[in-house]
Amino acid sequence: MTYRAPVAEMAFTLRQVAGLDRAIADGLHGDLTPDLVDTILEEAGRFANDVVAPLNRVGDRHGTPLKDGAITMPPGYREAYRAWTEGGWNALPGPVAYGGQGLPILLNAACIEMWNSAAMAFGLGPLLTAGGVEALSRHGSEELRARYLEKLVSGEWTATMNLTEPQAGSDLSALRTRAEPVGDGSFRVRGEKIYITWGEHDLTDNIIHLVLARLPDAPAGTRGISLFLVPKVLPDGSRNDLRCAGIEHKLGIHGSPTCTMVYGERDGALGWLVGEPNRGLACMFTMMNNARLGVGLQGVAIAERATQQALSYARDRRQGRAGAAAEGGGASAIIAHPDVQRMLLTMKALTGAARSLCYLTAEAIDRAHRAPDAADRRAAQARASLLTPVAKAFATDIGIEVASLGIQVHGGMGFVEETGAAQHLRDARIAAIYEGTNGIQAIDLVTRKVPLEGGAVVRGQIGSMRAVAERLVKEGTEAFGHTAPRLRETIEALDRATSFMLRALGSNRPDEALAGATPYLRLFGLAQGCASLAQGALAASAALKGGDTDPAHPARIALARFFAENVATAARGLEETVTGGAGFLQDAPLALAG
Amino acid sequence: MTYRAPVAEMAFTLRQVAGLDRAIADGLHGDLTPDLVDTILEEAGRFANDVVAPLNRVGDRHGTPLKDGAITMPPGYREAYRAWTEGGWNALPGPVAYGGQGLPILLNAACIEMWNSAAMAFGLGPLLTAGGVEALSRHGSEELRARYLEKLVSGEWTATMNLTEPQAGSDLSALRTRAEPVGDGSFRVRGEKIYITWGEHDLTDNIIHLVLARLPDAPAGTRGISLFLVPKVLPDGSRNDLRCAGIEHKLGIHGSPTCTMVYGERDGALGWLVGEPNRGLACMFTMMNNARLGVGLQGVAIAERATQQALSYARDRRQGRAGAAAEGGGASAIIAHPDVQRMLLTMKALTGAARSLCYLTAEAIDRAHRAPDAADRRAAQARASLLTPVAKAFATDIGIEVASLGIQVHGGMGFVEETGAAQHLRDARIAAIYEGTNGIQAIDLVTRKVPLEGGAVVRGQIGSMRAVAERLVKEGTEAFGHTAPRLRETIEALDRATSFMLRALGSNRPDEALAGATPYLRLFGLAQGCASLAQGALAASAALKGGDTDPAHPARIALARFFAENVATAARGLEETVTGGAGFLQDAPLALAG
Repeated sequence: MTYRAPVAEMAFTLRQVAGLDRAIADGLHGDLTPDLVDTILEEAGRFANDVVAPLNRVGDRHGTPLKDGAITMPPGYREAYRAWTEGGWNALPGPVAYGGQGLPILLNAACIEMWNSAAMAFGLGPLLTAGGVEALSRHGSEELRARYLEKLVSGEWTATMNLTEPQAGSDLSALRTRAEPVGDGSFRVRGEKIYITWGEHDLTDNIIHLVLARLPDAPAGTRGISLFLVPKVLPDGSRNDLRCAGIEHKLGIHGSPTCTMVYGERDGALGWLVGEPNRGLACMFTMMNNARLGVGLQGVAIAERATQQALSYARDRRQGRAGAAAEGGGASAIIAHPDVQRMLLTMKALTGAARSLCYLTAEAIDRAHRAPDAADRRAAQARASLLTPVAKAFATDIGIEVASLGIQVHGGMGFVEETGAAQHLRDARIAAIYEGTNGIQAIDLVTRKVPLEGGAVVRGQIGSMRAVAERLVKEGTEAFGHTAPRLRETIEALDRATSFMLRALGSNRPDEALAGATPYLRLFGLAQGCASLAQGALAASAALKGGDTDPAHPARIALARFFAENVATAARGLEETVTGGAGFLQDAPLALAG
Repeated sequence: MTYRAPVAEMAFTLRQVAGLDRAIADGLHGDLTPDLVDTILEEAGRFANDVVAPLNRVGDRHGTPLKDGAITMPPGYREAYRAWTEGGWNALPGPVAYGGQGLPILLNAACIEMWNSAAMAFGLGPLLTAGGVEALSRHGSEELRARYLEKLVSGEWTATMNLTEPQAGSDLSALRTRAEPVGDGSFRVRGEKIYITWGEHDLTDNIIHLVLARLPDAPAGTRGISLFLVPKVLPDGSRNDLRCAGIEHKLGIHGSPTCTMVYGERDGALGWLVGEPNRGLACMFTMMNNARLGVGLQGVAIAERATQQALSYARDRRQGRAGAAAEGGGASAIIAHPDVQRMLLTMKALTGAARSLCYLTAEAIDRAHRAPDAADRRAAQARASLLTPVAKAFATDIGIEVASLGIQVHGGMGFVEETGAAQHLRDARIAAIYEGTNGIQAIDLVTRKVPLEGGAVVRGQIGSMRAVAERLVKEGTEAFGHTAPRLRETIEALDRATSFMLRALGSNRPDEALAGATPYLRLFGLAQGCASLAQGALAASAALKGGDTDPAHPARIALARFFAENVATAARGLEETVTGGAGFLQDAPLALAG
């Protein structure tokens, strides 16, 4: 089963839910027009369908064998990557000054979704490069920018993020990699990094490693970490003192090499400082925030592909008799069985909700950079900060759930690798872990984002959800069913859980907030997802009233209703878990002993 | 990380929750004593830990290569299987008349859990043999029983179930395999079967295939299916006309061969009818009901092993500082972080709930066979019928969830195959599919089991849950926290959802019942799981008051509380989904179009 980029649905979500049309009207995006957006999405969709999607199985089967420090990428990757960069896709959101097209992050979000639906292992590498572009643009010296940015923006070279060491995963304070000044502005870097995505490959002539390391006089902990640019090939054309010493045998994304990188086995790998000494973590977070949204989009991407595949199978596969067909005749397509419909609708609704959430986040990032008014920029930045951990964790959690449901729809065939449904689950599983585990996202949300401006940012976001609910009530269309009351209940559950969180944090009971962080994030995702789908349903309803006969509109209304009546119903239980479940803080040592 | 059978926890659940002590006191199990139960569990645990558990990784890596119709099982499987049968483990629940030990299904349930925790691919084969023993004992002619039962009871030979054909998966009415009478009482069987677990292997000298096929004059549909015994090696020692034509490349259980079996390529495979002509489905359901509980136990088994592994990792791995440790000193073990505690407690609580549910089902099956009073037997049979689909689906669903959480606890290491956490998810995934997908279980529950005796059976079960809640309220121990009110809410949500189901079925609106079948089954599992854990907590509390200082008792109370306050909280939302979510029946064609 091949992938078809859902271009029309993406365009609808970008424009009607995430607010791209409004952003264009507000003058954020220069001479970009809605028509041009559609054209770009169409082109990207064609490329994803025709060139990238065929790489998905190949990458899974071939893997990325390592021999003598060199990695052979799966067949077809090199040609596809070259065509992809030459098509300008890597440069799409890049800075114009360095050859980028300066297009909105929001538009690129839809493209990222497509590349990753088509082949997540292929789409992953460029996400790292984009992070490198961001970090260098913001923190790199003029010299570094001049030397590296253009080639990273075009994708002629790729970038990596080197954080993790065996003893330092989520907790970077334990880093041991060292960097010593040479005296000419360069540094000698020595250490070992693990889990380096695309740390070595044969797609490009150079790979630019961004490496966290400690200076000799650095203070202990996270305040003594600096960021270095360490290229595989030095400016004089010689190979730097670094190599890929091993790759991981992983559950999924077999087409993406996960490398152990060794720096400075001989004289030390030559590197250059990015940003201020000891401020490397701040620079790295620039990369990571960008990458977190990208990873959230991977969750959406896998969910979309798994949903397409399950739908296609359910339309073809005939088993048993359902509904009207029970009266006589042959077997029904399994899509006619209510329980299969529930699975497929759950997949589609979760995917749509997660897509909205990620696109909304992208729009906030654009606005934070581009709004003419400083106060608007600040407000958008706060919104982006709030939404990023929710987008990352909710979308990757549902990526796993949807991929797992996709297997279930296939029955026994889903467990057979040949079908391809199982690969989606294997691939999806990493996205909840890398770029900060989803637990870390939940903790970030609760301890740093919810308290922003004393809670005003999160209250503002809840307010925007309430506005959707009020419009729904006014609209009162029968096709909405119980969408409005369910949405309201979900929002109010989130609001009460938010008050609980703010009280816990304000009363110096951070552990109570931490205890409920994960269910709180889920609740937030459900409320925002429900509101966003409902907003899409309102736009669809308006289009129908305006005479638009696109059958996608009633589908959007039905899907929003399904989400409200069948998925968002979990909200009250999540609220109760957040507000009443922290008893385990005291009991855990007992309950987990032995 | 190796596996240690949780023998003490199993014994506690068998005796205090599932009612083994009461069954012994009621005289159901002859001269079996609680002490003997403990001894058997200890011995089984030792065997599982020392002999079976080391096979888990080996099986996953080696697979079961097929060459010239012969399969090579993973290294060590043959020796372990022989030792296992010679230890009498296969014969444990078998009929005494054929060399079995006639021990309770309930005791064997704990053993099945152990074998499958230790190595699910290894534990799976004997589940099929047990089904074959059951089918032959109940439906086989005296001659067939005399010829085959003893060797199947001992495990000297294994058995298979041959249902699925490419066009006939969940819907067996489409079967095409044919059987023609030879005239001497035997039949010539011709056809192709897929997904045949252990259809071919090198562990035993013979394999007894139980094959569904149609007689020449058979009516169409499921009323024209008969069951045949088709041995790999015929009584005269010659090879039968059947072979393994292929094996599946699967997501998991790589140590268990999943075969395409071809019968009758030459003269037709010789087979013998089991049970009445055209009544094969009834015979097969005898096997399947048995196997469904076994598969549920596989869910528990994988969940237990994944939990042990995650707990062990979380105790060793140090990252960040949590709670009191935040004040100073080195990094904390990640088990000290509230969000990690939530994951681990969720894993442990779901595992315990699913274990209780499966053991309760086993106890009902024992009582249905052994109670001296016919009315008791009938009531127990009805209870077993009701609980079987819940045990199968709930336990296998949580098997997947717990294995996935286990990966998450490991962070990046969880995605690396070497760690072993990923294998659990890959293995667990099949259990929700085979022996009737979990959707089929939910449909069975709602359309056949809930209406039993006009709803009296399910009301009776709900009544037994209420009795636990009432005891909790009386007990009023502070350590129970909100266990009692949460349990009550969960039970009442189930009760209302049950009324909805009965009304829908009684008003000839079966689709409304089908639409909510899956969330209803989940709600049932949560309520019974919550009640069973609470029952264990009551027993633990009583033991503590009696001076028993076993630290497992406070752990049980804490875990029941965690389940009630953090997991069972989903109940209300599930109820709302069941009673208010069926709008999609009308909308699905719209929402899934395009």
